[in-house]
Amino acid sequence: MENFTFFNPTKIEFGVGKEQLIGQHLAAHGINTVLLCYGSERIKRDGLFDIVSQRLREQNIELIECGGIVSNPVISKVREGIALAKAHQVDAILSVGGGSVLDSVKAIAAGVRYEGDVWDLFTGKAPVESALPLFAILTLAATGSEMNPGAVVTNDETQEKFFISSTALFPKVSIINPVLMQGVPRDYLVYSASDVIAHLIEVYFTATVHPHLQSRLVESLINTVIETTEALLADPADYGARAQFAWAATLALNGLTFSGTAGFSYPNHAIEHSLSALFNVPHGAGLSVVVPAWMKWYIGRNPAQFERFARNVFGVDTGEQGIAALESWFNTIGTPTRLPQLEIKETALPAIVENVQSNVRLFGIADTYPPEVVTAILKNAL
Amino acid sequence: MENFTFFNPTKIEFGVGKEQLIGQHLAAHGINTVLLCYGSERIKRDGLFDIVSQRLREQNIELIECGGIVSNPVISKVREGIALAKAHQVDAILSVGGGSVLDSVKAIAAGVRYEGDVWDLFTGKAPVESALPLFAILTLAATGSEMNPGAVVTNDETQEKFFISSTALFPKVSIINPVLMQGVPRDYLVYSASDVIAHLIEVYFTATVHPHLQSRLVESLINTVIETTEALLADPADYGARAQFAWAATLALNGLTFSGTAGFSYPNHAIEHSLSALFNVPHGAGLSVVVPAWMKWYIGRNPAQFERFARNVFGVDTGEQGIAALESWFNTIGTPTRLPQLEIKETALPAIVENVQSNVRLFGIADTYPPEVVTAILKNAL
Repeated sequence: MENFTFFNPTKIEFGVGKEQLIGQHLAAHGINTVLLCYGSERIKRDGLFDIVSQRLREQNIELIECGGIVSNPVISKVREGIALAKAHQVDAILSVGGGSVLDSVKAIAAGVRYEGDVWDLFTGKAPVESALPLFAILTLAATGSEMNPGAVVTNDETQEKFFISSTALFPKVSIINPVLMQGVPRDYLVYSASDVIAHLIEVYFTATVHPHLQSRLVESLINTVIETTEALLADPADYGARAQFAWAATLALNGLTFSGTAGFSYPNHAIEHSLSALFNVPHGAGLSVVVPAWMKWYIGRNPAQFERFARNVFGVDTGEQGIAALESWFNTIGTPTRLPQLEIKETALPAIVENVQSNVRLFGIADTYPPEVVTAILKNAL
Repeated sequence: MENFTFFNPTKIEFGVGKEQLIGQHLAAHGINTVLLCYGSERIKRDGLFDIVSQRLREQNIELIECGGIVSNPVISKVREGIALAKAHQVDAILSVGGGSVLDSVKAIAAGVRYEGDVWDLFTGKAPVESALPLFAILTLAATGSEMNPGAVVTNDETQEKFFISSTALFPKVSIINPVLMQGVPRDYLVYSASDVIAHLIEVYFTATVHPHLQSRLVESLINTVIETTEALLADPADYGARAQFAWAATLALNGLTFSGTAGFSYPNHAIEHSLSALFNVPHGAGLSVVVPAWMKWYIGRNPAQFERFARNVFGVDTGEQGIAALESWFNTIGTPTRLPQLEIKETALPAIVENVQSNVRLFGIADTYPPEVVTAILKNAL
């Protein structure tokens, strides 16, 4: 097992009705004015916005609205949020939405405290040194952003999808009420499942050390995601399944699964970020295409762990059978596994490979993933 | 799955050489004078005390010594520590040792900030409202105290072993270097294994809801403890096993395994605390006696979970076989499973049952564990 530091100060409020606590939590942190960020107007139709604004009013907290954040969130919108936050001198940012809204909120929170252009923080030109306190009410479980210090945003001018990470970006409080997720459309549920599984297997397969303990935790989470996704497809109102799915998504990327491992990387995310950046495909849909393709390329580098995965997740014997079982499961739940299903043709490969190069540099894995390797992986997905 | 709040702000520094960071961490928290608590003089012989004092000197942090804390730590020693801390106006407490030292440190940290007698905090006469910041360098992995807000101390006058719990008692930083644990004697290793397993199964069996996710996490940790204990008995220098054992011990009681469950209780701990309080038996040795006896009494209340345990931990078919397998495993590793092995005779049962009554009240389970039930459980251990 490798040396590590584990630190995760986010307070999680999990369960039915927990969104009612948002006013108290903001007040406990001394917040007077908050920028409330969200995506579509759905939260106004379904009553969530009313609940939040009432709980804030009760605590005399002023609310500034910043709606219209889109999936694969863009830096231009982040800049708009920063301007609003500065104009109203808000002292916190509140995300009401899924990972896209929350990642935008993290970028806004950091950008307000940085004098230059916020994209500098994504390119590594400047580090994230501080941020406004940020809070979240989660309406989609997938990215794990609610209990980690990272955020991914796309530059809509340069078509780069980059990330930032800093302990300043841990949410102070994240509220996860599975009931708020019951309206998640079927396609976004299955994309979320593939996103969570991708988070789990990136570390599981790429780490240079694989303590049994960490492997067991990952397998526990993958098996939970598989089981609960199937339950939710059968009955979207299954609260127990919805709740376990959500908590598994949080635990998949909160530090638990990689503490004690080493040398791991996120090649599937590095490649997928280019698909999202160039073709605006849903992140999870891109991942379910990339993951099996990458596994077929990678299996020879870690055959023992692939065999373990096959056995402990799908109850099959060989690593190859495990990959086939995962691909088949993705097909069964209805998330794509081939590029043409994303309407991406073979002729687009050179542009993707080109775009991936900045991502693999950013992820620190350029040596392992030169253009010819990325091409080979993508060809597995044709 | 049940509603929950998860909050655990302790920073963990895990791995080889991490004790070297203690000066930096104390300095980062603005500490000028620290009460260093420890058990035997072993830390002076093996060099750990020198390392700590040198790292503190480099940061101009004054060190006040408070040695001689014993296993099953006692409130009289805690009072001594409080007096020292007040006399020297220390602004933090540092534990260098195992769970007994750390729990004493938590009691001292809380006691310094409380005007009355510290035992009031254990009897519930007053709540723990604040505490001095506390830090830990762990030399024995078992209790999980390094990443949780609880502490257990014995009143050596009244023979009561009670606990306190408060968010003020989360260590700021806990340093876990498995190398420092290599000298743990064989008997304390196996007592630690039974303590960790007890922490895991109390929730696993007694909770009124058992989401698969949480059950899987518990089974992952139990299987890790079993596997690594056997590895360490074969080779105490097996760093990988030592490290996984230690991290499993931390995760077993840091909130991860019970978040989302409900209605769980700690009957085995409630009963064992009386064995420790009355006969000063090692906590883990007491637990390996109580646990199988309790399981035999409890199985009918949750047969499905006992069957699950049997299957997923020991690969046997029935709940009864699972209990027998655990008892047999305790015997194999050399931790006692019967009261006579602790030199406790049947004639002592009434005194134990009497002492347990205050513990089950404190643990909130007096209704389920009236004297006749506790007697029945203890008789299973004769």
